Amino acid sequence: MRAVFQQELASVQDGLILISDLVLDAIRDASTAFNSADIALADQVITADPVIDRLAVELDELSIQILGRQGPVAHDLRIVVAALRMSALLERMGDLARHIAQLVRRHYPQHVVPESLRDVFVELAAQSVRTAELLNRLLRTQAVELADALIHGDARTDELHRSVFAAILSEDWTGDTEQTVDVTLATRFFERFGDQAVSIAKRVKYLSTGEWAPQRVRP
Amino acid sequence: MRAVFQQELASVQDGLILISDLVLDAIRDASTAFNSADIALADQVITADPVIDRLAVELDELSIQILGRQGPVAHDLRIVVAALRMSALLERMGDLARHIAQLVRRHYPQHVVPESLRDVFVELAAQSVRTAELLNRLLRTQAVELADALIHGDARTDELHRSVFAAILSEDWTGDTEQTVDVTLATRFFERFGDQAVSIAKRVKYLSTGEWAPQRVRP
Repeated sequence: MRAVFQQELASVQDGLILISDLVLDAIRDASTAFNSADIALADQVITADPVIDRLAVELDELSIQILGRQGPVAHDLRIVVAALRMSALLERMGDLARHIAQLVRRHYPQHVVPESLRDVFVELAAQSVRTAELLNRLLRTQAVELADALIHGDARTDELHRSVFAAILSEDWTGDTEQTVDVTLATRFFERFGDQAVSIAKRVKYLSTGEWAPQRVRP
Repeated sequence: MRAVFQQELASVQDGLILISDLVLDAIRDASTAFNSADIALADQVITADPVIDRLAVELDELSIQILGRQGPVAHDLRIVVAALRMSALLERMGDLARHIAQLVRRHYPQHVVPESLRDVFVELAAQSVRTAELLNRLLRTQAVELADALIHGDARTDELHRSVFAAILSEDWTGDTEQTVDVTLATRFFERFGDQAVSIAKRVKYLSTGEWAPQRVRP
């Protein structure tokens, strides 16, 4: 019985890893599309997102079946409940990558952001990809130091996010209203992508160490 | 045993209702603060938000205990799992009300949005309050027609959200960059508030009718 249960828990973990693989692909492609105004790649992200949604629903079904069949206790129970949370957060990360791709599509053949902001967004995008990579490795290994690296790295995302606002609120900003709107949305999508990853990292850390005071991320 | 379990399920429902009471207070106060540039009320929303966060964590703990203790099956299990989801969504609605209040605080003594957009935001805010009221009644009564009214009403929110963008992208818009940024954020916060409520309404409907094809909301 215990062996079956361990095997089912492993399936849940595999499910999370698979979804995070797809989220990593999504943010990588969305970032490249964003940086190079590549509509084909943007469309690919948009088309692929329902797969993430479907896998998240399937993983939830599996988790619910496990909860019903096994009557897991204590720590195991927390793992399954955490998986339910994480699948929702990963699914949201996929949505945010799709939102970024949709901005690319709307502006094509123009870039979403003007030349003057290109560098900061390249860094913001790279930061999001790095976050998704760390998250993927974290889900594979449960290595707490990866959770810490991810949480630490998110401070840099927030800094870049603030610097985007500083740039568009400075006197040098010559963008029109549409550019201002889309820069605002774009930086918010990247920032929220990081926030969801931090929520997941904190849950993994909590499961591993019990260290985590139960509190939510302040976006 | 069964009676104890029913009592515990009722506690979970009470917990959701209590949190949704506070979310309703939060969006009502945030909306009033937004419409009248009332910083005292905005501060009240900001100060009250951690209570929502704490109650959501406590409700999750209760749900996890129930899952562990009772080994609930089938429909009951789905109710507890849905409660875990709903508490996360309600908590996010509280965050969004707080974000709106934070915009009010940042602009005080000015309004967040200029005169020309005041009416559409009054309606957007009223729509959010109405959504929170419907949600509260839905959680109290589980009446499917309230879920439908809520989901239907969200289309109006989306329409208002789009009309804000149409207004700031028109030639008549004379707002500066800061106003454009904050109008963009404000309309997005109201829109996302509605999206979370729709997610909850769909879950309640699914639990009641089994009708719901498992899919996520497209924001």
